[in-house]
Amino acid sequence: MLIDHLAIIGVGLIGGSLARALRKDKLVGKVTGCNRGEDTLKQAIELNVIDDYSLSIGGAIADADVVLIGTPLSTTNKLLPQIAEAMNDTTVLTDVGSAKGSVVNAARECLGDHLSRFIPGHPIAGTEQSGVAASFAELFVDHRVILTPLAETGAKAHQLITDMWQAVGAEVINLDVMHHDQVLAATSHLPHMLAYALVDCLARMEEREEIFKYAAGGFADFTRIASSSPEMWHDICISNRESLLETMTIFSEHMERIRIAIEAGDSEALLKIFQCAKTARDNFASKKLT
Amino acid sequence: MLIDHLAIIGVGLIGGSLARALRKDKLVGKVTGCNRGEDTLKQAIELNVIDDYSLSIGGAIADADVVLIGTPLSTTNKLLPQIAEAMNDTTVLTDVGSAKGSVVNAARECLGDHLSRFIPGHPIAGTEQSGVAASFAELFVDHRVILTPLAETGAKAHQLITDMWQAVGAEVINLDVMHHDQVLAATSHLPHMLAYALVDCLARMEEREEIFKYAAGGFADFTRIASSSPEMWHDICISNRESLLETMTIFSEHMERIRIAIEAGDSEALLKIFQCAKTARDNFASKKLT
Repeated sequence: MLIDHLAIIGVGLIGGSLARALRKDKLVGKVTGCNRGEDTLKQAIELNVIDDYSLSIGGAIADADVVLIGTPLSTTNKLLPQIAEAMNDTTVLTDVGSAKGSVVNAARECLGDHLSRFIPGHPIAGTEQSGVAASFAELFVDHRVILTPLAETGAKAHQLITDMWQAVGAEVINLDVMHHDQVLAATSHLPHMLAYALVDCLARMEEREEIFKYAAGGFADFTRIASSSPEMWHDICISNRESLLETMTIFSEHMERIRIAIEAGDSEALLKIFQCAKTARDNFASKKLT
Repeated sequence: MLIDHLAIIGVGLIGGSLARALRKDKLVGKVTGCNRGEDTLKQAIELNVIDDYSLSIGGAIADADVVLIGTPLSTTNKLLPQIAEAMNDTTVLTDVGSAKGSVVNAARECLGDHLSRFIPGHPIAGTEQSGVAASFAELFVDHRVILTPLAETGAKAHQLITDMWQAVGAEVINLDVMHHDQVLAATSHLPHMLAYALVDCLARMEEREEIFKYAAGGFADFTRIASSSPEMWHDICISNRESLLETMTIFSEHMERIRIAIEAGDSEALLKIFQCAKTARDNFASKKLT
């Protein structure tokens, strides 16, 4: 048994999928859920995702060996003091937030001695769906999970969380906190802003009905991420504000170069930009893990 | 037999797929190809896409009932005078360019009496692949084809091209030329600029290797269209310059609103924009044809 007792604070797509995967392979003894709403927890029991639940964080964590925080980022930061209070001196804590700097700052403030057993994590997996009903055991197979251990992080806790993610099929990678937030701002947070901005922009145009009517497969692919949870992405924007703003500025400069080239009819510049992008995208497609 | 003799100028993904579909259902008697390079034409014969070919436009068009121009937009405009010269007084001409204003302008200049038999068209179908090797008979099934007939367009020619696209599984829709270009700037041309700008921008960052390494499924979907043909998209930018620049300006204003909201930590504004986009995208997903 890898983990005797796992507590999941916020049983949603990620937490639910992890529980399903661990239970499927009998890698966990008991899974206790904890959510604000009891309906979700009852649903999670019906779906056979958790064994039992508690509406209080203290109750959920009391006997847990590993605590996974699967809540949106803003909630994580609010809950950390309560979680810290309920942890004992062997509890291992991890989270799954898409931005790591703000969580790590909050953890430093309130975890005290427990900080060495906090392993900040970010599974690069998910769909535009959210909620426990969308969870499935194979979500992490062949996906990457980034851990951002701290100078204070203990080896044993780090190893346990590494083993846990590997056991459900993920490749585990360690990155510096700040570096994680910069890289993810570029690959994930910026694209989400672009997709949201595009769909919001088109939805406000007079011709919106026709616009969506004549949109094709490329548009469907391009805008899929605009169906993601507004609350989750709000939290990511707030949490990764600095890196995201920096990346948005760089992007705007590139967009402006294209605009100027179109305005000037500068064929050479346009072809160069498009070719550079095509080459990079083709390379990415031929190498990517999933 | 719907068409006795079809000539395709530029046998690529679109022209090749149309030929395959018409031949599969025995809706065409003979298909003649015409390309700049003989290798493509030999390949098209090997793939059983065309029956024969000519390296001269005059030779390809001489006995054709319908001529389909499948070349990139810049080539179309250059070839129109030669095509006009080779047409007889029953030849029906159509094209498949993604922007219609510039083709229609060029056609007005050089087609003379043949203008009534020119049906500008735009199949909303394609993949990020190009070339005859990527063509397949089912490309147009359940996709839309937009025709932008002119005041001068004759009913018989219009009906024939409508029948041709319907016969290969497409839904045919008629739109005004300018309106087509505005709508497509929003749904297709702008998203391609965003995808190209994003991938070009990331490919130039210092951390580019890591950036592409940690990119996930959402990124793959979002950037797929950046693998499209640089030459084709260069031509679209030049051909649909005005509508595209206008749409890019509107988009930049929306992006700037998001940037300001992130900078100010304006949760209400962010949630409103993301929710508006999610609702529009979810509606689009539930209604879209393909």
